[in-house]
Amino acid sequence: MIMAHKNRIGNLFSLTSFGESHGPAVGGVIDGMPAGITIDMEQLQREMARRRPGQGGTTSSRNESDEVEILSGIMDGVTLGTPIGFIIRNRDQRSADYDHLKDVYRPSHADYTYQAKYGIRDHRGGGRASARETAARVVAGALAKQALSKLGITITASQVSQASQMSQVSQVSQVSQVSQVIPVIPSIPQNSPSKIEGDGGSMTHPSQYHDKTNNTPFLCDTYGGVVNCVIKGVPAGLGEPVFGKLSAQLAEAMMSIPAAKGFEIGLGFDFVNHRGSEVLDKFVMKDGKITTETNFSGGIQGGISNGSDITFNVAFKPVATLMQPVEGVDGQGNTVTIEPRGRHDSCVVTRAIPIVEAMAAIVILDNVLINRASRL
Amino acid sequence: MIMAHKNRIGNLFSLTSFGESHGPAVGGVIDGMPAGITIDMEQLQREMARRRPGQGGTTSSRNESDEVEILSGIMDGVTLGTPIGFIIRNRDQRSADYDHLKDVYRPSHADYTYQAKYGIRDHRGGGRASARETAARVVAGALAKQALSKLGITITASQVSQASQMSQVSQVSQVSQVSQVIPVIPSIPQNSPSKIEGDGGSMTHPSQYHDKTNNTPFLCDTYGGVVNCVIKGVPAGLGEPVFGKLSAQLAEAMMSIPAAKGFEIGLGFDFVNHRGSEVLDKFVMKDGKITTETNFSGGIQGGISNGSDITFNVAFKPVATLMQPVEGVDGQGNTVTIEPRGRHDSCVVTRAIPIVEAMAAIVILDNVLINRASRL
Amino acid sequence: MIMAHKNRIGNLFSLTSFGESHGPAVGGVIDGMPAGITIDMEQLQREMARRRPGQGGTTSSRNESDEVEILSGIMDGVTLGTPIGFIIRNRDQRSADYDHLKDVYRPSHADYTYQAKYGIRDHRGGGRASARETAARVVAGALAKQALSKLGITITASQVSQASQMSQVSQVSQVSQVSQVIPVIPSIPQNSPSKIEGDGGSMTHPSQYHDKTNNTPFLCDTYGGVVNCVIKGVPAGLGEPVFGKLSAQLAEAMMSIPAAKGFEIGLGFDFVNHRGSEVLDKFVMKDGKITTETNFSGGIQGGISNGSDITFNVAFKPVATLMQPVEGVDGQGNTVTIEPRGRHDSCVVTRAIPIVEAMAAIVILDNVLINRASRL
Amino acid sequence: MIMAHKNRIGNLFSLTSFGESHGPAVGGVIDGMPAGITIDMEQLQREMARRRPGQGGTTSSRNESDEVEILSGIMDGVTLGTPIGFIIRNRDQRSADYDHLKDVYRPSHADYTYQAKYGIRDHRGGGRASARETAARVVAGALAKQALSKLGITITASQVSQASQMSQVSQVSQVSQVSQVIPVIPSIPQNSPSKIEGDGGSMTHPSQYHDKTNNTPFLCDTYGGVVNCVIKGVPAGLGEPVFGKLSAQLAEAMMSIPAAKGFEIGLGFDFVNHRGSEVLDKFVMKDGKITTETNFSGGIQGGISNGSDITFNVAFKPVATLMQPVEGVDGQGNTVTIEPRGRHDSCVVTRAIPIVEAMAAIVILDNVLINRASRL
Repeated sequence: MIMAHKNRIGNLFSLTSFGESHGPAVGGVIDGMPAGITIDMEQLQREMARRRPGQGGTTSSRNESDEVEILSGIMDGVTLGTPIGFIIRNRDQRSADYDHLKDVYRPSHADYTYQAKYGIRDHRGGGRASARETAARVVAGALAKQALSKLGITITASQVSQASQMSQVSQVSQVSQVSQVIPVIPSIPQNSPSKIEGDGGSMTHPSQYHDKTNNTPFLCDTYGGVVNCVIKGVPAGLGEPVFGKLSAQLAEAMMSIPAAKGFEIGLGFDFVNHRGSEVLDKFVMKDGKITTETNFSGGIQGGISNGSDITFNVAFKPVATLMQPVEGVDGQGNTVTIEPRGRHDSCVVTRAIPIVEAMAAIVILDNVLINRASRL
Repeated sequence: MIMAHKNRIGNLFSLTSFGESHGPAVGGVIDGMPAGITIDMEQLQREMARRRPGQGGTTSSRNESDEVEILSGIMDGVTLGTPIGFIIRNRDQRSADYDHLKDVYRPSHADYTYQAKYGIRDHRGGGRASARETAARVVAGALAKQALSKLGITITASQVSQASQMSQVSQVSQVSQVSQVIPVIPSIPQNSPSKIEGDGGSMTHPSQYHDKTNNTPFLCDTYGGVVNCVIKGVPAGLGEPVFGKLSAQLAEAMMSIPAAKGFEIGLGFDFVNHRGSEVLDKFVMKDGKITTETNFSGGIQGGISNGSDITFNVAFKPVATLMQPVEGVDGQGNTVTIEPRGRHDSCVVTRAIPIVEAMAAIVILDNVLINRASRL
Repeated sequence: MIMAHKNRIGNLFSLTSFGESHGPAVGGVIDGMPAGITIDMEQLQREMARRRPGQGGTTSSRNESDEVEILSGIMDGVTLGTPIGFIIRNRDQRSADYDHLKDVYRPSHADYTYQAKYGIRDHRGGGRASARETAARVVAGALAKQALSKLGITITASQVSQASQMSQVSQVSQVSQVSQVIPVIPSIPQNSPSKIEGDGGSMTHPSQYHDKTNNTPFLCDTYGGVVNCVIKGVPAGLGEPVFGKLSAQLAEAMMSIPAAKGFEIGLGFDFVNHRGSEVLDKFVMKDGKITTETNFSGGIQGGISNGSDITFNVAFKPVATLMQPVEGVDGQGNTVTIEPRGRHDSCVVTRAIPIVEAMAAIVILDNVLINRASRL
Repeated sequence: MIMAHKNRIGNLFSLTSFGESHGPAVGGVIDGMPAGITIDMEQLQREMARRRPGQGGTTSSRNESDEVEILSGIMDGVTLGTPIGFIIRNRDQRSADYDHLKDVYRPSHADYTYQAKYGIRDHRGGGRASARETAARVVAGALAKQALSKLGITITASQVSQASQMSQVSQVSQVSQVSQVIPVIPSIPQNSPSKIEGDGGSMTHPSQYHDKTNNTPFLCDTYGGVVNCVIKGVPAGLGEPVFGKLSAQLAEAMMSIPAAKGFEIGLGFDFVNHRGSEVLDKFVMKDGKITTETNFSGGIQGGISNGSDITFNVAFKPVATLMQPVEGVDGQGNTVTIEPRGRHDSCVVTRAIPIVEAMAAIVILDNVLINRASRL
């Protein structure tokens, strides 16, 4: 029942965000934060630090302190139940770096599509399409996490080191341990001709490129990756069973993250390699409670949480902004060569981890609140 | 900006559905159908026929005519702009087939989760969790398709025959044809130890099981699969760029289909096997229009359609209802053996195809309407 | 936080309705009815009977049994938490009565505005604009009332007999009784030159008109009126304090009823006749609880219920369909005289009473559920 | 189809607001502003100036510059189509003025109801319940007005000087001028015993009270009033005909303004004083267009605009914060006397005028955008 509406996500607990990469600020309004929760602002800033640029092998990272200013909704450290407005100033903008992009559409960027939609766009640093908007998501997610922690719900995402975990998957389907079996993505063919040895996960040995202005070497190509997320402590019963399946809500929330191109829950795409009889999650009693022996389903049955860990994967494409010359077009369709400028991450996945957690927290808290209406 | 809210999906064009598998009827209300569109009711019934049970190797299919009765919103074959109420009577119910499930939770079904959420459930044929609810989706989708066809937009889904298309993917990334390159899922490892030879796609040579009552043999296990969907003719500019990315909306809509466990757009999970420089969709001019040479992105950049074909995959798990005895639990957690009864498909994927198309049509029409507000 | 969206009203508890007056049926989907509530279907039918035509001095009332067929969401008389689909067949339609209106816009009807909006309309009996759509509201309201009654909340509307209650208002402001003081509308000037003596409230002595076909006399003019509604037992804390004020939600719900033209809460428009010091609701202790001595506010302060009775008035204009010849225009703007046909009420107010109650019940139940999210 | 959701109002064009009266700032996010509109920031600040305190006979007005800082969504003075975040700093707070209210519930304020809802409240200056939140409404309304003006739609509100306009109403119903007849509220009985001579409209000769600290005299009581609003240039066809009637949306928007207690459209409550035959808006041709001779309906028929001026009235109660001692209670229900402090308006109506216009602009722009989906 999460509702993504333009720049808003969530229903009873929602975030409405705003901000271009090179405008005065990004920020948002968190509406529906339950009243009476003591907020740890230092914890919030730590979440912000996890998202900051320069964590994925960037050459010349943007130096943003990402200091969150809370403008309302919290008094003496306690939530009031009223909306929490917040801003994060854009301080280290270097907008002139982007002058050459004013009339150019870069390949695999949102330049052309924004122009097609709005007839105008902020070309500086991607404008609204910049990953900078995710700062607002992390603020909302950090508050949601603090509320959820009071209910014993924790959310942990991590980058999947594909090769090693693939074998772990094999073990899992053979050994079938109770409940803690977390399937990971099986979607990396081991000997695909297009496989980049060693790079997908660890990003070692990348090619290098020399910055013309200061002659420092840096990564000249980019890499995608997969983030796995595990949500523990979710009670059975969350999610709306038809269009608002908890898995559908999570899919929407994750696929709304910049560069996200795939989502799967539980065994996900690997389900198609198994017969139904192989992947039933049989019920067992444990500590006097009904639970399941395996967790192929990823903690959700028929769209509703079943009390097991919720586990899902999100695939991110390589960032489209390369530190090497690429070909774009101008508004008339003429090919133009775009020299690399600005500051960009070579791999977005590390920074995506706190964003995945934030989006998961928003969805789960919203559903905790919504589920209170299931019975009188 | 599609909004899935309990039993409603869509914003300016929306479907609110209702109905249990063994209640009097399923149906819904389609709100926001534009006025003045002539509806081909026979075409609608043909879509319904594609979704009907008994198309996936079922032994004893439920004989539902799935006749749609339109109750409002269409006069003399033309839409009025008012809501279109419709019902589909449940005629061939055999509810007694389900008496043995009244106090039993079947593994990997929604029995336990519905009970956890509502404290009550309709145990007959899965109740609301039955795939029978998808009949309403196909009605709304069929009307949306008819509206979209007037705008030159077509939607075609098909089951992916994995092995053959994998090689096609290789061709694609080598040959790089303009625009029509449709990547398909690369997620089936060719020699995984858990691979069921020949079954995943074609479902040949399944094991058999004998129905005790009439001694006929039938499929005793179930199979999942992947559905690929291609949307042609979508203009550039659809989708809301942050939380309401068109890809996120499609993900939510697809993941709301029963048994859906994964979604990927364009190259999807295979993006993680490529460097950024390998998967840029370079712009080219074609027929005086800006388009892209390849379509790794699947027709969406920054959450907004770019005018290329929109292509995505949906993974479906094997149906959890097997035609063989399985172990469940009762409300007290005691293990019970559940003998197969009722009528069930061995592979849901064939039936899922029109549902995938329907959900895509709902999302695209909604966004066509929403996008009219982008500029004054 | 109620959200009226085209043909849907409500958020966690919502009604999506459909149906033209002379189509096959009217009906709707009630989504978010809490699970586990035993429904009294006879009580529901009694509510339907209160709304039926022919209760306001009609000459030739439409004979609709208004039998509600529940299609889902209730099993063995108990709500499942799943959506409740329902239909009410249109049986006594006499559509030919409306052939003369096909190309004519009647004054003060929705004929012209529907045509302007949709470019097409169902001219038979007002189509979607007919008060027949309110049957669906009464169904949803009846179920909401049954849920609310379990929480001790009751809703009672009645027609205001203006003259007598005006003096009661005077008494109220002089005597100031505790809590039970229910202000009623002061908006009827006692000696306005346009006052229709005796008609506004009691509709006695109306003019008569003779039906040409059967020579029976009937009312030839129509009358409006005011409905007062009192909601008892609402706990303090309902309503969202800024845009979703409980008073704003009630206003929207009431003003969505056909022919509603005014809404006021508590003293309403009469507030402008008083100094602030005269109309403060002073707090008093009663039975160990904080309450107020008077209730000028109508039970809502700052948009949130304060535990006192919620009282408001709704003004209805006289029905625009007269039983006398009126002048309309055709599509080309030519004046045409429209002879009275069909069957119409002379005063809509009696029938509006159960509709006012129904809309109030929808709003209050929705807010009861929403308010559960105010604190963790 | 406007949707008021906690601190958000509007659908395709929406405002999400935040801010407590004595927190760091108030502000909001305007989502769905169409792209490509040149914004006149000085005009926006002029609207803000109209809303500022100290315009209604205040003794010691709060000195707020109400300077709006736009943080996103506008580049080089032109809207981008992306969300417009903005803040207005709270500068002149004097929070200590409110220390005495920390544990006290003032009569007819939101103190008690906020506490009941959230279990916590910001007691300083009314917190979120302060009229200060309306600053955000005026920002959104000012932008909406600028968009509407490009479509030829203008919105003008004014305080009703009751006595004089009452007679104008009489003229209207006798003379029946074409189209420009704007009915105003008839709800002020001319010789009601509770009438405050001369005060309701003009606020002349109020009682005075002496400020203990500086011995200056000031108004010791407060007054309500009625604001009439006229919207010109609205095309026929706006509004959703059932639950989202344009009149219902306007009612909700207006009743969400602090101190609003009544709403009526067209003749409003005065409709009950007339027979149906007296208040039909007969069609006439004018300049080759179908229009109506009178406008008793207030420009809306069946919930949809008919092209005539939209006219409605909003009743505001006297502000509950008096400049004289009043009795309140503490949390234990003990009566406490509250001495007047802080700075408060004696009549809110002057300041309400730009807010009424702002809310009307939000509703109309939203519906202009929504109506584009009525036909394909």
